[in-house]
Amino acid sequence: MENDILKDLKEAVLERIRPKTEERTYLKEIAELLIKKIDFIACSMDMEDVSAKLVGSAARDTWISGTHDLDIFIMFPGNASREELEKKGLIIARKIAEESEGFEERYAEHPYINMRYRGFDVDIVPCFRVDSSSCIRSAVDRTPFHNEFIKRNIQGLEKEVLLLKQFMKGARVYGSELRTQGFSGYLAELLVIKYGSFENVIRSACDWQPGTYIDLNSHGIIQHKEPLVVVDPTDPKRNVAAALSLDKFCMFIDSCREFVLYPSLDIFFPRSVTQTDDREPIQKLRSRGTAFMAIKFKTPDVVEDVLYPQLYKMEQAVVALLEEHEFKVINKGSWAGQSTVILLELMCDTLPTLRKHRGPPVWVHKHAESFKNKYVDSEDVFAFYIENGTYVAEVPRKYTDVYVLLNERLTSCSIGKQISSAVKKGFEVLQESKICSIQDTDFKLFLMNWPKI
Amino acid sequence: MENDILKDLKEAVLERIRPKTEERTYLKEIAELLIKKIDFIACSMDMEDVSAKLVGSAARDTWISGTHDLDIFIMFPGNASREELEKKGLIIARKIAEESEGFEERYAEHPYINMRYRGFDVDIVPCFRVDSSSCIRSAVDRTPFHNEFIKRNIQGLEKEVLLLKQFMKGARVYGSELRTQGFSGYLAELLVIKYGSFENVIRSACDWQPGTYIDLNSHGIIQHKEPLVVVDPTDPKRNVAAALSLDKFCMFIDSCREFVLYPSLDIFFPRSVTQTDDREPIQKLRSRGTAFMAIKFKTPDVVEDVLYPQLYKMEQAVVALLEEHEFKVINKGSWAGQSTVILLELMCDTLPTLRKHRGPPVWVHKHAESFKNKYVDSEDVFAFYIENGTYVAEVPRKYTDVYVLLNERLTSCSIGKQISSAVKKGFEVLQESKICSIQDTDFKLFLMNWPKI
Repeated sequence: MENDILKDLKEAVLERIRPKTEERTYLKEIAELLIKKIDFIACSMDMEDVSAKLVGSAARDTWISGTHDLDIFIMFPGNASREELEKKGLIIARKIAEESEGFEERYAEHPYINMRYRGFDVDIVPCFRVDSSSCIRSAVDRTPFHNEFIKRNIQGLEKEVLLLKQFMKGARVYGSELRTQGFSGYLAELLVIKYGSFENVIRSACDWQPGTYIDLNSHGIIQHKEPLVVVDPTDPKRNVAAALSLDKFCMFIDSCREFVLYPSLDIFFPRSVTQTDDREPIQKLRSRGTAFMAIKFKTPDVVEDVLYPQLYKMEQAVVALLEEHEFKVINKGSWAGQSTVILLELMCDTLPTLRKHRGPPVWVHKHAESFKNKYVDSEDVFAFYIENGTYVAEVPRKYTDVYVLLNERLTSCSIGKQISSAVKKGFEVLQESKICSIQDTDFKLFLMNWPKI
Repeated sequence: MENDILKDLKEAVLERIRPKTEERTYLKEIAELLIKKIDFIACSMDMEDVSAKLVGSAARDTWISGTHDLDIFIMFPGNASREELEKKGLIIARKIAEESEGFEERYAEHPYINMRYRGFDVDIVPCFRVDSSSCIRSAVDRTPFHNEFIKRNIQGLEKEVLLLKQFMKGARVYGSELRTQGFSGYLAELLVIKYGSFENVIRSACDWQPGTYIDLNSHGIIQHKEPLVVVDPTDPKRNVAAALSLDKFCMFIDSCREFVLYPSLDIFFPRSVTQTDDREPIQKLRSRGTAFMAIKFKTPDVVEDVLYPQLYKMEQAVVALLEEHEFKVINKGSWAGQSTVILLELMCDTLPTLRKHRGPPVWVHKHAESFKNKYVDSEDVFAFYIENGTYVAEVPRKYTDVYVLLNERLTSCSIGKQISSAVKKGFEVLQESKICSIQDTDFKLFLMNWPKI
């Protein structure tokens, strides 16, 4: 990377992602207003020891222009009861939410409220104010400690974080939610602190391997099996990168190398494949010469962090079902909009009438004998013979058509609770042309980008 | 096995296979006549130390009625030169053959003559008369020693040998030539000597396992890896069952168990599947729902012991070729008449346009980089992405149709010399209906018995 080019490039990126003064001022105003309101409500409920606090990237000046997320924590005393926190926390949050443009109660470890408020997406989250992160009583209690650690260490590096986050977005590896399984904002911040700059992170990552271990405080006490381990500076047992999948880890390495060789704005802001005409997806699919099969059902009404793990689990279960019956799956993927679609790409969608059922070696007397008794004179056995020392019975294949297999056996797959009940309410198995006739722009993009978005 | 039933059954079998007095007398006369003639010719050539000898089952009274094979060895002194043996041996043999109804010169380690003579199939084989089997100068020199050993030990057990040989024929495991890879007559005789009777062989074999070791003289000095080891009483290094394949070993065990449970004449004289009408083979093949493909070429003019090993090797090579290109072979087999046919049964005969070409793990920097450079922007690559930590390039499949693959690549397969030159002179790749239209009764039987004769 020629230094001047890189400098100009970084400036061009920052120009697009760094919030301007006006946007920052407005965010600060709104955050302060909400904090004041919460503190006032708590006070009016005789809870002087309860106070609100802005945490997350908004509090650390590491947020990207246009992403108007506020995380406001209602901090209860560390010795408050869980019941009090849940009950009173919700009362306070609901009062604030009454002034919002819309809100919903969500559930993680505790209930919390998410609301739209004057252009912001605000989470109001009750938590315990504990003395040290080793005493946390709930997962969210850790966040204020993260906040403090980053605020203390990030000064002067905020731009580097912005660049890295945008780079990760461009590389499609940003976001630690269960759908993406990528890098969290906190993880990006820790990497910048570790390596000192955006470029240094990128250069270092080019040579990452599974097992890469980063421990800023040299206090890690547990072995982790994830590809990247970044020990939480506020908790020696926790791997901040635990949610990062092997493929997202590799995609990041790949993008870093790409950037070192060919630094460009495109890596930060990739152009997406766009849909131009109605016939393209089917042409694209057919050109592959494979067989496509889709399972379609109404998307269950659950948050993404519930939906996606179940979808991924369902993909696995369906592939296992198909491979158990000797259908070879080349690629799998899922898409969720109003409907959910599990898409499967197969070597072929029909198999021979018979299958070879291999028995025990002939010399294992008892087992061999009972295998032979079961099959040798069975009317539907095509042939019975010895091959490579074992008995072989050629038996009728139960499912010669993957369409029938999916229709008959899908509901017996081991799939997650919410998806399972959605599937049980009804599903369709679709073949190629029906798949391509699903009318949804985003789904068509999914097809055009097949097999990986 | 109820003893009376078994006794009757054995008598019924012997009735059909034991040569009657007239047949025996005739065989003896012919053998003696030929021996006299050879001795006379040798004498007239001033070779008083050369004499003829009847060996093999005819000499041991263990031949089955109707099989009119004579093995007559021309025994040269142990110190004769190889050249003398080959030259003079052939002169004598040719003189005898002049009186035959037809003969041909064949080549094993030495040349020898095979002739049709008054209803007999006679081999006239020159060999060295050595003092002990440890001094043999050529493989055939061993035969007279086998002959002596069996003659000394088989008295009174000849009927048992006849029963066992016929049983092995019925089980399709008799014959040690490279086509069959079964039990030789000598091996059957040794088993009878070892176990004392036909029934005892059968009962013992029910519990044979690979590694079964029989050493009548307790003089074996070598470890063998074949499923059955029967140390040659005349040669401690030799396994008499070396030619027996694992499957023929297992088929024998299987038949023995069958016989113990259901003694019947059918096991000795199985009814073969017979061809009734022209349309059957294709119906049979189609009912399997698989894809058939055949390679047909003119059978090369070589003996079976040369042809079959090359055919089996070719089957392996063709299967390897197909599987290298992801065509899954379910069964393979070959048949040889005027033409030779290698028949292949496949899961399906066409594959998708693309195939997934998996590269190195992304973190193996240099290899990963060169893989990526090669494929990422290649025009004919369908997609390039990361999956399970490795790069994947979806590239065009070279052969999507097994017919094209076989036509284009068969001659590049590593196949035996004679077959290779036969194939190079011309071959056809046939699909289902063309396969079934090959007009040969024996080939139709081969199809009707598919996948195993």
